[in-house]
Amino acid sequence: MAADAPYKLVYWPGLPGRGEHIRLLLEEAGVPYEDTAQMTATTDDELVGTAAVLAQISPDNRGDAVNAPPLAPPVLEHDGLVISQTANVLQYLGQRLGLAGDLAADPNAVYRVSALALTALDGLSDEVHDCHHPVSTSLFYEEQQAESVRASRAFVRVRLPKFLAYFDKVLAGSAAGSGPWLHGGRLTYADLVLFQCLDGTAHQFPRAIAAARASGLYARVFALADAVRARPRIAAYLASGRRQPYGEGIYRHYAELDVTAEDG
Amino acid sequence: MAADAPYKLVYWPGLPGRGEHIRLLLEEAGVPYEDTAQMTATTDDELVGTAAVLAQISPDNRGDAVNAPPLAPPVLEHDGLVISQTANVLQYLGQRLGLAGDLAADPNAVYRVSALALTALDGLSDEVHDCHHPVSTSLFYEEQQAESVRASRAFVRVRLPKFLAYFDKVLAGSAAGSGPWLHGGRLTYADLVLFQCLDGTAHQFPRAIAAARASGLYARVFALADAVRARPRIAAYLASGRRQPYGEGIYRHYAELDVTAEDG
Repeated sequence: MAADAPYKLVYWPGLPGRGEHIRLLLEEAGVPYEDTAQMTATTDDELVGTAAVLAQISPDNRGDAVNAPPLAPPVLEHDGLVISQTANVLQYLGQRLGLAGDLAADPNAVYRVSALALTALDGLSDEVHDCHHPVSTSLFYEEQQAESVRASRAFVRVRLPKFLAYFDKVLAGSAAGSGPWLHGGRLTYADLVLFQCLDGTAHQFPRAIAAARASGLYARVFALADAVRARPRIAAYLASGRRQPYGEGIYRHYAELDVTAEDG
Repeated sequence: MAADAPYKLVYWPGLPGRGEHIRLLLEEAGVPYEDTAQMTATTDDELVGTAAVLAQISPDNRGDAVNAPPLAPPVLEHDGLVISQTANVLQYLGQRLGLAGDLAADPNAVYRVSALALTALDGLSDEVHDCHHPVSTSLFYEEQQAESVRASRAFVRVRLPKFLAYFDKVLAGSAAGSGPWLHGGRLTYADLVLFQCLDGTAHQFPRAIAAARASGLYARVFALADAVRARPRIAAYLASGRRQPYGEGIYRHYAELDVTAEDG
């Protein structure tokens, strides 16, 4: 296995989406990577990056001798390996790039970190997405707007506090160690995932997240997010053109969904 | 690490749920395990198993020096490790118990298998669950029944064929190898996951799954499910009292949701 084999992220241009978790890991690790979302940056031809994604998920893509075709992006290509599923790609990269815990001291740290990342993705990515597509991803938002308002109200009233309280509890626990991070007193990709989940949730529900921050109930969670944002490589990345603006992706801002727990 | 340290699954009694994927892996591997769902089998006291789950997910559970508390079951306890998240537990067990691919030949097989399992869980477990709870898991089914009918119609018309066609394509691809399995010509936990996902989806949508089987379009998928069901240890397990009946869990049968693609 070549240590310097290039990393290639295959993901839609024009939105952070699930690919963003992988970008943040690669950026924090400081390793170069190719990103199909950037194939539009200098060409005005969005089809270049989009075509790379469509080729991966085409019914005609049968994979190769060792790699099954993916159902959906993000897809990571590295040194003959072609894998999909955000949490899976993160675990692969996290182990290789020193962001999955102190594996020399305890190889099982990788599973502890993975559980935290998967939980953040469940509650603060998948569930937030489903607030604007509660009935089906196969229908337009406009076809399920009334249901989206109901879903958003239930989310900010019940689910958002549940997940924020959970991560605050994790951060207060012994396994988190000292400092702002979720596990073992060191930065892992689970911290990057939680940061991005909070950033995206704040895009969709700015009033609810502002209220949660102001409440002081989840101070450790927001301190973690602030600490990630202040990492030199992350700060430089967020200020760069490589950071995609939010759009018609996982996290969407609709005024009518921007509710708080007090809205009923 | 003691090779014979006991495995303990902490999961709700009374329904297969997400814990079922872990049970099937342990049953196929032929290793003994403790299951909190079975703590009711001889006592008539359902609270024994339920209390074990509630203790794990209680706000008062702060975890220990190395293990963060879980948000939700299933939880696996093994040799000092306490981890949650179904796909994560499966990956841990699959690697240890020889059901994550031919890791001696290619350690990266574990990521290929994980991607397939995560995709099955996304489409044929999470999305099926959301058909009866489209607006919010924090509301009762009866509060979102009309939306559930819409969600179910969209699922069986668009999403179910998409996932079935995807897995049929994977099974037809070179990376699947020979025989009925998804990856590398050998049984992995991804096959067990796909089996359980199909079995559960057939409980919720018997008409749609019967139509899919009868169509012949996904013959490889149903052949895989039949091959899993015929494994001696799986067959013995399914016939045993250890197999929980479907109930108020991930997969639920409501007559009004039992739709097919032809129902509009």
